[in-house]
Amino acid sequence: MRDAALPDRVKIVEVGPRDGLQNEPTFVPTASKVEWIGRLVGAGVKWVEAAAFVSPKWVPQMADGAQVLHEIARGQGVVFSALVPNVKGLDAALAAQCDEVAVFAAASETFSQKNINCSIAESLERFAPVVDRAIAAGVRVRGYVSCVLGCPFEGEIDAAQVASVATRLYQMGCYEISLGDTIGTGTPLKARRMIEACAKDVPVSALAGHFHDTWGMAIANIYAALQAGIATFDSSASGIGGCPYSPGATGNVATEDVVYLCHELGIATGIDLPALIDAGRFISDVLGRPTSSNVARATQARARLARA
Amino acid sequence: MRDAALPDRVKIVEVGPRDGLQNEPTFVPTASKVEWIGRLVGAGVKWVEAAAFVSPKWVPQMADGAQVLHEIARGQGVVFSALVPNVKGLDAALAAQCDEVAVFAAASETFSQKNINCSIAESLERFAPVVDRAIAAGVRVRGYVSCVLGCPFEGEIDAAQVASVATRLYQMGCYEISLGDTIGTGTPLKARRMIEACAKDVPVSALAGHFHDTWGMAIANIYAALQAGIATFDSSASGIGGCPYSPGATGNVATEDVVYLCHELGIATGIDLPALIDAGRFISDVLGRPTSSNVARATQARARLARA
Repeated sequence: MRDAALPDRVKIVEVGPRDGLQNEPTFVPTASKVEWIGRLVGAGVKWVEAAAFVSPKWVPQMADGAQVLHEIARGQGVVFSALVPNVKGLDAALAAQCDEVAVFAAASETFSQKNINCSIAESLERFAPVVDRAIAAGVRVRGYVSCVLGCPFEGEIDAAQVASVATRLYQMGCYEISLGDTIGTGTPLKARRMIEACAKDVPVSALAGHFHDTWGMAIANIYAALQAGIATFDSSASGIGGCPYSPGATGNVATEDVVYLCHELGIATGIDLPALIDAGRFISDVLGRPTSSNVARATQARARLARA
Repeated sequence: MRDAALPDRVKIVEVGPRDGLQNEPTFVPTASKVEWIGRLVGAGVKWVEAAAFVSPKWVPQMADGAQVLHEIARGQGVVFSALVPNVKGLDAALAAQCDEVAVFAAASETFSQKNINCSIAESLERFAPVVDRAIAAGVRVRGYVSCVLGCPFEGEIDAAQVASVATRLYQMGCYEISLGDTIGTGTPLKARRMIEACAKDVPVSALAGHFHDTWGMAIANIYAALQAGIATFDSSASGIGGCPYSPGATGNVATEDVVYLCHELGIATGIDLPALIDAGRFISDVLGRPTSSNVARATQARARLARA
């Protein structure tokens, strides 16, 4: 079953190994990260955010980024990216032979100040040389915008403000702008209007949706984003990550749930869902926590029932 | 924020006290049911499925239906309904002064046989005199169709088969047909096409969506159903009920999540969300289980953070 108004294929960026693990309290050994990434790739995942080159003092979970990138199997057509906050981080990412890097801006002034200790304008100024240098080195840059549908400090965020930050990142040279609903309060109509605002100055094909399921709205928001022409989504296998602004609640939407939605809509992802569920179970077991994927939970419950 | 293509108001039918509690392992005392229903009404809920007049041997959780209907406060413009499988059940519901009754058919032959021990055609024949007698007594009848987006035994269900059962119930005299995704595997496009099939012969204003969140798709399906013109939804406060076909997984979509979605879409429900969350917490505490509402969980996590 297909709907001609929806894309026939989506790109799924697996952010669990970075955005996910960074927000888990348990430190995951390098070998487990490498094993998990290998399983994700085995399931057909083609884009993996694998590391962050940030201060290990602030983000100890990501301290082994270079080692992870060194140990994972490369050259299978999989794009491995890393978050870099500045030129120093970029240089470390380049030394580790990252295929892509990402910079991280906010659509909320207060969030920018609290998260990266500078204004939005200052952060964009800081990113410009990072983007230039990455492109000069032949490495593409992804730009994140956080708080696109709400801020934990400011509440509502104006779609025009989101569009302005997204446009600046795009003009700077970022090939893809990932629009993040950091606190997960977004709903389909607001998502659609925010995307429409961004698409005035950035081609919709260069926009990605990064939804959190904290309020249970992520899949509906993704459906609305698909209807608005978005064909790239970030997600985290097993929903790894949680939400730092709602401790105990869900953060990143689970990749399993996004893949199930897409396949049922007749949209190809290139990912094998049962293998992905297995990969999600692996990291959940490492972390000693239940999956946050509804699809994984329902699949496992069904399997238990079949055995009973 | 409004979208002219969406309804400006929805009717929410709270099914937790019947469909929800019936599927919970814990027996809830009559006084707690009455207290819960009072809290739901206090939050603005106007339609409550409060009881089932079925054999207490099969459904012990519902054995006190007449007592519940006797003890709850009446006459506040709230419509209280009960499930009735046959004329005997209807007579008990009429004696208990139900405002409405509901009959329960399936779109899957195998499910019909396993659930109510007869074919779909036999069940519809059995319901016809129930509907006639209810209408003669001045009581409206709601018709349920289960397995509209999949069957635990048969898998895929043809939308034409759903439409056929829905149409028969409507022609029989049911004023509203509730379309139930019993196993929660449904996705937005399938939901929309199933609704379009039903709307060929039943006015869309007489159709209701009854979605389960077992696979995490309920809110997206409700959004798609709103886009298809549906303005009535069944849900269960706190997601009470679980899924008998996926033990341990979510069943009925949580009323809190539906209300949040609607309000954020600019759609009125008449329900006060914080009061509803309190009512959901009450019954979760009685049952000794965590809420299945993402919105309640995120709200409570936010409140904990604010106190910390």
